[in-house]
Amino acid sequence: MKNPSLVLNKVDELKFVDYDIDESLGDNEVLISNITTGICGSDIHYYAHGKIGDFVLLEGKPLVMGHESSGIVTEVGPKVTSLKRGDRVAIEPGLPSRFSDEYKSGKYNLCPHMAFAATPSKEGVENPPGTLCKYYKAPEDFLVKLPDSVSLELGALVEPLTVGVHASKLASIKFGDVVVVFGAGPVGLLAASVATMFGASKVMVVDIFDNKLQMALDIGAATHVFNSKTEGGVDKLVEKLGESPSVVLECTGAEPCIQLGVLALRTGGRFVQVGNAPGYVKFPITEFATKELTLFGSFRYGYGDYKTSVALLDKNYRDKSKKIVDFEQLITHRFDFVDAIKAYDTVRGGNGCVKCIIKGPETAL
Amino acid sequence: MKNPSLVLNKVDELKFVDYDIDESLGDNEVLISNITTGICGSDIHYYAHGKIGDFVLLEGKPLVMGHESSGIVTEVGPKVTSLKRGDRVAIEPGLPSRFSDEYKSGKYNLCPHMAFAATPSKEGVENPPGTLCKYYKAPEDFLVKLPDSVSLELGALVEPLTVGVHASKLASIKFGDVVVVFGAGPVGLLAASVATMFGASKVMVVDIFDNKLQMALDIGAATHVFNSKTEGGVDKLVEKLGESPSVVLECTGAEPCIQLGVLALRTGGRFVQVGNAPGYVKFPITEFATKELTLFGSFRYGYGDYKTSVALLDKNYRDKSKKIVDFEQLITHRFDFVDAIKAYDTVRGGNGCVKCIIKGPETAL
Amino acid sequence: MKNPSLVLNKVDELKFVDYDIDESLGDNEVLISNITTGICGSDIHYYAHGKIGDFVLLEGKPLVMGHESSGIVTEVGPKVTSLKRGDRVAIEPGLPSRFSDEYKSGKYNLCPHMAFAATPSKEGVENPPGTLCKYYKAPEDFLVKLPDSVSLELGALVEPLTVGVHASKLASIKFGDVVVVFGAGPVGLLAASVATMFGASKVMVVDIFDNKLQMALDIGAATHVFNSKTEGGVDKLVEKLGESPSVVLECTGAEPCIQLGVLALRTGGRFVQVGNAPGYVKFPITEFATKELTLFGSFRYGYGDYKTSVALLDKNYRDKSKKIVDFEQLITHRFDFVDAIKAYDTVRGGNGCVKCIIKGPETAL
Amino acid sequence: MKNPSLVLNKVDELKFVDYDIDESLGDNEVLISNITTGICGSDIHYYAHGKIGDFVLLEGKPLVMGHESSGIVTEVGPKVTSLKRGDRVAIEPGLPSRFSDEYKSGKYNLCPHMAFAATPSKEGVENPPGTLCKYYKAPEDFLVKLPDSVSLELGALVEPLTVGVHASKLASIKFGDVVVVFGAGPVGLLAASVATMFGASKVMVVDIFDNKLQMALDIGAATHVFNSKTEGGVDKLVEKLGESPSVVLECTGAEPCIQLGVLALRTGGRFVQVGNAPGYVKFPITEFATKELTLFGSFRYGYGDYKTSVALLDKNYRDKSKKIVDFEQLITHRFDFVDAIKAYDTVRGGNGCVKCIIKGPETAL
Repeated sequence: MKNPSLVLNKVDELKFVDYDIDESLGDNEVLISNITTGICGSDIHYYAHGKIGDFVLLEGKPLVMGHESSGIVTEVGPKVTSLKRGDRVAIEPGLPSRFSDEYKSGKYNLCPHMAFAATPSKEGVENPPGTLCKYYKAPEDFLVKLPDSVSLELGALVEPLTVGVHASKLASIKFGDVVVVFGAGPVGLLAASVATMFGASKVMVVDIFDNKLQMALDIGAATHVFNSKTEGGVDKLVEKLGESPSVVLECTGAEPCIQLGVLALRTGGRFVQVGNAPGYVKFPITEFATKELTLFGSFRYGYGDYKTSVALLDKNYRDKSKKIVDFEQLITHRFDFVDAIKAYDTVRGGNGCVKCIIKGPETAL
Repeated sequence: MKNPSLVLNKVDELKFVDYDIDESLGDNEVLISNITTGICGSDIHYYAHGKIGDFVLLEGKPLVMGHESSGIVTEVGPKVTSLKRGDRVAIEPGLPSRFSDEYKSGKYNLCPHMAFAATPSKEGVENPPGTLCKYYKAPEDFLVKLPDSVSLELGALVEPLTVGVHASKLASIKFGDVVVVFGAGPVGLLAASVATMFGASKVMVVDIFDNKLQMALDIGAATHVFNSKTEGGVDKLVEKLGESPSVVLECTGAEPCIQLGVLALRTGGRFVQVGNAPGYVKFPITEFATKELTLFGSFRYGYGDYKTSVALLDKNYRDKSKKIVDFEQLITHRFDFVDAIKAYDTVRGGNGCVKCIIKGPETAL
Repeated sequence: MKNPSLVLNKVDELKFVDYDIDESLGDNEVLISNITTGICGSDIHYYAHGKIGDFVLLEGKPLVMGHESSGIVTEVGPKVTSLKRGDRVAIEPGLPSRFSDEYKSGKYNLCPHMAFAATPSKEGVENPPGTLCKYYKAPEDFLVKLPDSVSLELGALVEPLTVGVHASKLASIKFGDVVVVFGAGPVGLLAASVATMFGASKVMVVDIFDNKLQMALDIGAATHVFNSKTEGGVDKLVEKLGESPSVVLECTGAEPCIQLGVLALRTGGRFVQVGNAPGYVKFPITEFATKELTLFGSFRYGYGDYKTSVALLDKNYRDKSKKIVDFEQLITHRFDFVDAIKAYDTVRGGNGCVKCIIKGPETAL
Repeated sequence: MKNPSLVLNKVDELKFVDYDIDESLGDNEVLISNITTGICGSDIHYYAHGKIGDFVLLEGKPLVMGHESSGIVTEVGPKVTSLKRGDRVAIEPGLPSRFSDEYKSGKYNLCPHMAFAATPSKEGVENPPGTLCKYYKAPEDFLVKLPDSVSLELGALVEPLTVGVHASKLASIKFGDVVVVFGAGPVGLLAASVATMFGASKVMVVDIFDNKLQMALDIGAATHVFNSKTEGGVDKLVEKLGESPSVVLECTGAEPCIQLGVLALRTGGRFVQVGNAPGYVKFPITEFATKELTLFGSFRYGYGDYKTSVALLDKNYRDKSKKIVDFEQLITHRFDFVDAIKAYDTVRGGNGCVKCIIKGPETAL
């Protein structure tokens, strides 16, 4: 069976390849088609630079792109019980070892054997192809069924949304928390949305671009915004928020944001590092210790997080008159599969893009 | 009633002063005498430098020294029910506001109105005199009765021991944890002892002086030691320990130790910053986030910690044949009250001193 | 200063008495007037039976009634900083000992020295008068300032609302929980409202009266209701809810409800006993253990709970267009202070009363 | 390959059968021989009654007995990396589905697809044979390597010990807890030992037989014992213990013990139901709620518990001079495999048996 796929051949070179895909399915395996995929910042990074940290695109090892996807179940393996042909699903792109301690303990994101879609393989870890193709195979328990209220496009937001869900769970965000989110890119906006949906009484998004901050307000992700370039330092931030925050979700990895977050937190506050920071940062450890803060490192997502994301979208859209966050506004650009390279170039060029969605090849069910 | 006291008049100038003390007691107040006091590194810092951070010794505001003390109850206020004349007690030196949120929530160490013995007053906080005197008054609920198994000298260790108890509780140290403690000074040795008593399966103390490390082994505080100056880096540390630690208690505040601790921890590990660090440190945030570590700031001690320390000493000494940690070895120097200035100079000079104890003026009960 | 008060003299005998109240205020004390008070089931119980458990109304010890109140600050003591004349406040009716371990650890509801308004005194505990009077004194930190969005009437709901807040915190109700609340009286309806505001994805209220269940839906407290008398047993309940609940809040104390709750819960679920149950109940311990459930006893409320209630009302009413729960519908009856006895008789008689509010004597500020 | 096995044919009928076992191993599978097995109360129950709850021994479905076992690795599958021929291991007898939510979240004991050795199969669950045989196969990650300090006989105690570990983890038993354990049978004695090793300051075992209580003291599992038949009720228990306990581990399932445990606990205390109770018990719910107790249902054991048990035995026996609990005294009877039926009859008859061990067929490695 032919499986047209979007492939990163080397830096700056994307192309379409017709791979073959075996039609047979394992016991618990599911074949998915009609795949809708969002483009992630990391995708563009591989496209432009060929590597992220240890993960390096190797010559002769073309990479099928795409890992923020939803799709429709086309075929199910003989022991699949939770899904059936025609079901729409969000696709979890990383598959840990089912024998690892991390998997057993609910922290499978930390599994050293994690195989993650659309990521260059390296010694000891053979990563699977990405989801920008016609057909994709996944075990049933790494697929989450989308309820009627959640479209395939919203389903393609589940992956980055889950990064925010995981961070918010680490911080135990609950009713009444006062949350500051650093970064108004897709991850920051989605993390702020999660904090709002988890019951935070105030959510402030901090960035250095007013148009991005405006979107945080427009979609209902934030009650407050703060431009850390033009509005001042920690005193101004706290003054605008009306109080010191109880939680910081740091989604930029920028040293000044990390410092500002620690200074702003109230005593006993919680800080989650979500964004990728550059190795070492100058960290205000005295302030941190004296206020007895807690810092959580956050890496991708683990047990139960994908389901929470889908439940969150369902709660938001079940009764549209009670919608709290307008997630759909985040999807600023849409392309068909044949224009996928154009989609990548659009995102790479900026163009006011928040989230760009590629509608995969259609298959009649 | 005369109350001879050891007073820091200004930098380098200690002297004895005979203050007056009012004999009357408040409803829940207790008068203590026969006070035994340990010298803390911070005492020496005030003696040599006249300040720590914001806390500055002011001219004309002499400071009664001492805050690591035990003593004997001499008189009790009319509503005191938990203590009686003759009881031996450990004295908690800090009194928070009983109206603050921090006090109500068990985190009174974070109370902004904390009045802490032997600490220079500053705007908004009037600190009480220290414990190096003949008589000292305290509310009954900030005194913990010492059981027969715990001597007054051991009672004078309760204050620094409780710093380790608080940090170990923050890290939820429990049976089976593998703990690395940075620093083999009094706080590090006591923190390691707590980790051992809390059920850690391995405790490694790290320092750069072999004689200090030897003491960690000699008193039974540690199962392993590591000289980070002579034995190598993170790989050697982990190799010697046999595995990556699940918990780090950082009691030095030194940047290289903080970095080494983060690099050594296993995924999901916990790191407690106990030692005072110099403002900002270069912090390995990427490693921290990727391994999903948790960092806890630790500041003094709060609700229940003092009682845990006394219970810990009681458990260790109740049946001396089953003693686990030899805390008494930590007391390397002893002085009478009349020689208190000599005691300070001895500690200031180093002299292989771990913990130096001053036996206060005796009072017949 | 005269302080007209509503007094329960003995069973069936309420009357007005003009007590004297001393105008002087302690350092942190606040004088409140223009008090609005709700009638609680326990008030009616004392009125009709003269006792609840150990608490017995004694002859010659008339009881000033009322403990669900809000009011306006009339005067403040010399050291009060958080409130000023004219502020509207919710009044916490119970004052624990500030020296008790329970108070220090955040669980002051468990303090054995708790002095609770409008409760008969017993040996060792001298309870203060109730709030159904012209003037009432309270320490500033047991008053929570009402924001503009929260009326005095809503402020009178804070006390029973906080019972639901406390239970929901014990169960750690958070985004995505599926909650079943037993009982559609005021406490059950308010507990369901809290679960909804805390982010539960589904909230089912269970009762045996359809009109009460209808109110749960009408005010937006519940997404589902179940009549356990007419709709069947555990299978029907789970079928109607669409899944087994993750949390049960039991607000009736009735044995069949307790049993039904345990049978309905999913494995690993949490059960909070809020309602007063009659001593012993037949408890399905095997089912409980095999599913590894957790049962929490809930008693009144403790540190932070009152503030959470006020924050919850503020969040609900801050932007009235986004109101989630219509708490005001719960107030079905209103009386002036002069008609307070009539108010009591109305509630005692049933009369479709959910929450009856008495507007206290007005005082010009 | 012949695999001689001890089989329960029907009630009262044990016999030896020579089954065949396939020598080939799956990728992660391990073949174990030289198996040492303890007899459990449930084994005797099947022998005498043919069923426990839903699990019924069916005619024509003989059951290979044994599930408390250790053994020696004889052969490993091609992908096994953590074990090698000759390693001694404790064998976990239950295998959950690797796809279930319960497995992923660390609570695999609650997995509805759990296949548990030596348990009659029922609809939907095909249970594997028991361990009382010459060869046994298991996946490597359900085997825990025994350190040199832990003998095969001690390894056979790991299964029931882990029941106590799981319960103690549910109750978060840690340094300073005061624990009461109901029941001085093998599970109660082992649970008390775990509480002691986890740092409890006092552990009291309660039973109605003085000789059993004496063993709790003799092996060092308890600091206190209480005969609930001869020494009185809750007041006497608390008086003897010196204070109310913070934790109860209920290992009998008997209604009077459950009631006594709830009455004895201090406010805020934790209660774990470990023992199988008979369906419903009369439960003191008012006392439970008023003291804000927490009840945890405990069922077998889950992620990490087996490893904790082996670590606990290692800590106890690593340096024999510091041994805290004398677990070996619990092994009162030993039989060779050929005498296994005699072993069962001995345990069934009482005979002062605490734990009876059967040494399986030897195999040269």
